[in-house]
Amino acid sequence: MPRDTSETTTVAQTGEFGLIRALTQDRVQPPFTLLGPGDDGALVAAPDGRVVVSTDVLVQGVHFRLDWSGPEQVGRKAVAVNLADIAAMGALPTSVLVGFACPGDLPASVLTRLTDGMWTEAERAGVGVVGGDVVRSETLVVSITALGDLNGLPPVTRSGARPGDVVAVCGRLGWAAAGLMVLGRGFRSPVGVVNAQRYPEPPYAAGPAAAAAGATAMIDVSDGLLADLGHIATASEVGIDVRTEALQPDQRLQEVAAALGADAQRWVLTGGEDHALAAAFPPNVELPAGWRRIGVVTRAEFGVTVDGQPHSGGDAGWEHWKTS
Amino acid sequence: MPRDTSETTTVAQTGEFGLIRALTQDRVQPPFTLLGPGDDGALVAAPDGRVVVSTDVLVQGVHFRLDWSGPEQVGRKAVAVNLADIAAMGALPTSVLVGFACPGDLPASVLTRLTDGMWTEAERAGVGVVGGDVVRSETLVVSITALGDLNGLPPVTRSGARPGDVVAVCGRLGWAAAGLMVLGRGFRSPVGVVNAQRYPEPPYAAGPAAAAAGATAMIDVSDGLLADLGHIATASEVGIDVRTEALQPDQRLQEVAAALGADAQRWVLTGGEDHALAAAFPPNVELPAGWRRIGVVTRAEFGVTVDGQPHSGGDAGWEHWKTS
Repeated sequence: MPRDTSETTTVAQTGEFGLIRALTQDRVQPPFTLLGPGDDGALVAAPDGRVVVSTDVLVQGVHFRLDWSGPEQVGRKAVAVNLADIAAMGALPTSVLVGFACPGDLPASVLTRLTDGMWTEAERAGVGVVGGDVVRSETLVVSITALGDLNGLPPVTRSGARPGDVVAVCGRLGWAAAGLMVLGRGFRSPVGVVNAQRYPEPPYAAGPAAAAAGATAMIDVSDGLLADLGHIATASEVGIDVRTEALQPDQRLQEVAAALGADAQRWVLTGGEDHALAAAFPPNVELPAGWRRIGVVTRAEFGVTVDGQPHSGGDAGWEHWKTS
Repeated sequence: MPRDTSETTTVAQTGEFGLIRALTQDRVQPPFTLLGPGDDGALVAAPDGRVVVSTDVLVQGVHFRLDWSGPEQVGRKAVAVNLADIAAMGALPTSVLVGFACPGDLPASVLTRLTDGMWTEAERAGVGVVGGDVVRSETLVVSITALGDLNGLPPVTRSGARPGDVVAVCGRLGWAAAGLMVLGRGFRSPVGVVNAQRYPEPPYAAGPAAAAAGATAMIDVSDGLLADLGHIATASEVGIDVRTEALQPDQRLQEVAAALGADAQRWVLTGGEDHALAAAFPPNVELPAGWRRIGVVTRAEFGVTVDGQPHSGGDAGWEHWKTS
């Protein structure tokens, strides 16, 4: 069956097996994929003898809006947020699986475009979409599971940071939050920040590089820098102090903030969804390429501070139900 | 935080991080789990150097009804259907991950009871729930991903059956379909068939045993025996003939069918959701314990037949959207 991209053919008309064919045919699997879609399970290489695995669920209207993002962008985002978790463990991503729950009257083209976006991001990370499921639901829900390989290194958890460690980040901060405000005000530009909200571009290779450099703790910045450093601080029983001089907003962010009457520094410190990586490294380590020093690990009693002071910016991140 | 089992505390009141604590604390992970929940990813043993992986999505009102099944039973089912896919590849299950999307006004106890059921089934299979996600959605959706290990054997796909092979099954057939009709008529007993609908009991160990015995093709019976043998026949480019004399309904099924005016033989041939395993074996193989011969692999032009005849029982299984 040729892939149907008509806007008028629905998921129900295409049917489960037709959809699976349309979603899986003509895809080129990378070497990690030993057996791709089409059977009860896929088979993925795990050369390390251990496998890192993580799962995320994204819901239309909660995690994405199809009036703000095209399906390709939502697909990219769904894969990116999950692969960022793999990278944040210090692992090289090896594969993703996807589950779709969707209404029967959804145009089938939305699913194929979502899948196209997933493959775009998967290929960026060097992995394949190796399997999945498509079922009926009133709400469009996308679940993603990613696998990764540690190449013989220990996993980099949130709990290994020690006082005196250097705190560093790799990747953008504040861009997705800026894009969210732009979209919320009804604008569609500047496209740089808007696209940062539509799909993050996590620096996947920076995760294994940090692990190889001896990172003591790592996390991807999904909730916001201070919130996610807070997760490291809690798990490691340490404090963390970041310096705003090392976290100056990009000129583009400052322009957007000025236009909207917003605080660009706050976006950098508390904005989520950029999926940068944040990590602690031993004091004298040479940071891998792309990583920049932003602070230092302190003792637990100091908590998470900004320039030595408790942060006064209000909420320190996003939590389901509680703050939304 | 103590696990909250109050019927009156909602998911929204408990909050995302409180929920994750309640869902993960006090769980005992098996040896496969090298790093459990609480970080960006989990770490699972993959001694074979390859990992079998499969994902399923279950939606309230489509795959389960909380007025027909308790949350524990839904949790058992969600894990069982996914682990059955791992077993059907010939692999030993090693771990599961779970994603919940649920309304904020859902009682938090529903999630903890779902999780209790997942752990019940996971422990039955010797695996742990190693990670997950909890997000907000209007519809309750449960996504499950399972991993497994092939212990050095080739994966048993759907495509290796050859004419002359023996066709065999392990596990119950028709019970879930009988239970579905009982529940649909408003009854809650007999409990044997009703519980078979609420949660399958796949014979996990029979999958690796079949692989070790040289099974040429295998599938788990989710859509119905004839439909799933049809998947093997299509993938292997063969025909399959099953013999009703080897597929006689259990006495209990016959009693239920008589009471409801239904056809027990039809339940056995076309009823889904029991997640028995069906496989083809070389002609002279000694079948592993629990497996019983039900037919033979023929040539493709004969298709899937019952006692040498095309089956006249109507639809041969369940497909999303198309037939529902």
